[in-house]
Amino acid sequence: MPRPASGARERILETTLVLLREGGLSAAGLNEVIARSAAPKGSLYHYFPAGKSQLVAEALALYEPRIAALIEQSLHSGHPLSRRINALFMQTAKRMHAAQWRQSCAVGAVALDLTSGDEALRARCEAILRHWANVAEAGLPELPSAHAAPAARHLVALLEGAQIQARLRQSAEPLTEAAAAFRAYAHGLLLAEA
Amino acid sequence: MPRPASGARERILETTLVLLREGGLSAAGLNEVIARSAAPKGSLYHYFPAGKSQLVAEALALYEPRIAALIEQSLHSGHPLSRRINALFMQTAKRMHAAQWRQSCAVGAVALDLTSGDEALRARCEAILRHWANVAEAGLPELPSAHAAPAARHLVALLEGAQIQARLRQSAEPLTEAAAAFRAYAHGLLLAEA
Repeated sequence: MPRPASGARERILETTLVLLREGGLSAAGLNEVIARSAAPKGSLYHYFPAGKSQLVAEALALYEPRIAALIEQSLHSGHPLSRRINALFMQTAKRMHAAQWRQSCAVGAVALDLTSGDEALRARCEAILRHWANVAEAGLPELPSAHAAPAARHLVALLEGAQIQARLRQSAEPLTEAAAAFRAYAHGLLLAEA
Repeated sequence: MPRPASGARERILETTLVLLREGGLSAAGLNEVIARSAAPKGSLYHYFPAGKSQLVAEALALYEPRIAALIEQSLHSGHPLSRRINALFMQTAKRMHAAQWRQSCAVGAVALDLTSGDEALRARCEAILRHWANVAEAGLPELPSAHAAPAARHLVALLEGAQIQARLRQSAEPLTEAAAAFRAYAHGLLLAEA
């Protein structure tokens, strides 16, 4: 078998990730991946012999650390809390805007497609959101320690929900508003503590 | 043409709505609707001559007032604010639990499936979230008036995001936590006002 063109593997995975961000599991069909990546069909089966489940798992493995890094760079920066929270939502807005508001979180989109047959994928997506929340928690040291973990999960929920609104409004406004709401929430926790 | 069995129209729409809540636009294919509703193929084309776009639009028209009523019954009840907020998230948890955590908001699931060709549907879904936020706003009269509208949009974002988490954790916990976070947020707004 001839060796597939260099870079085909990466191109296939990046295309799968874009499709997951656009429309979840159902959007990332093998034919669509081949068409959009312009990869030869053979290279898809060469690199991903287990088919779609392998492709999706590897695309999510590519995605998970990127968003973890985005959360870390935004929240662990040493700036004041309000500014760090804004940075996280604004970075998310920037990514969505660059994709004309047609891509959002791959995990959110996959979550809303899961059927009873997708148990391994569900557990994987759950673990990814938990990982992101852990990274966020470490970036919120000002918050009262009893509240840091639920606050970080709240931040993740809000990021997911605001992305739904941003796709519908095709605007950064829902993300700006979510940042303001999370700032008010964090401020309330600090006031209650004081 | 023989008249389709009475009730077939309703059954087709309810099935479409379940499929939208399970997996968004891509899950609600005509063949799947026919298979799951056990409706004769002819009755689908009889009642929905424009096909899938009509089916989805009518299913969302069925869904919109149901969730508006759920928000209204939860938030407009005359109980204290904390209890009303809890009621909204707990009613949502109850619906998801009844569907074994495999169904969530139809609008959220559709939003994360939209492509550039779905402009009318995008605008429709945007209007539904706006309607729900208006209903929520009217149910939050304690909040400082300048904050009521953004707080209501925040509530809608959080409901959507917490449903993503609940599908992944297959548990009411994310909805319970979201209720607590929204209560803390609302409390913070009231403290800031005082």
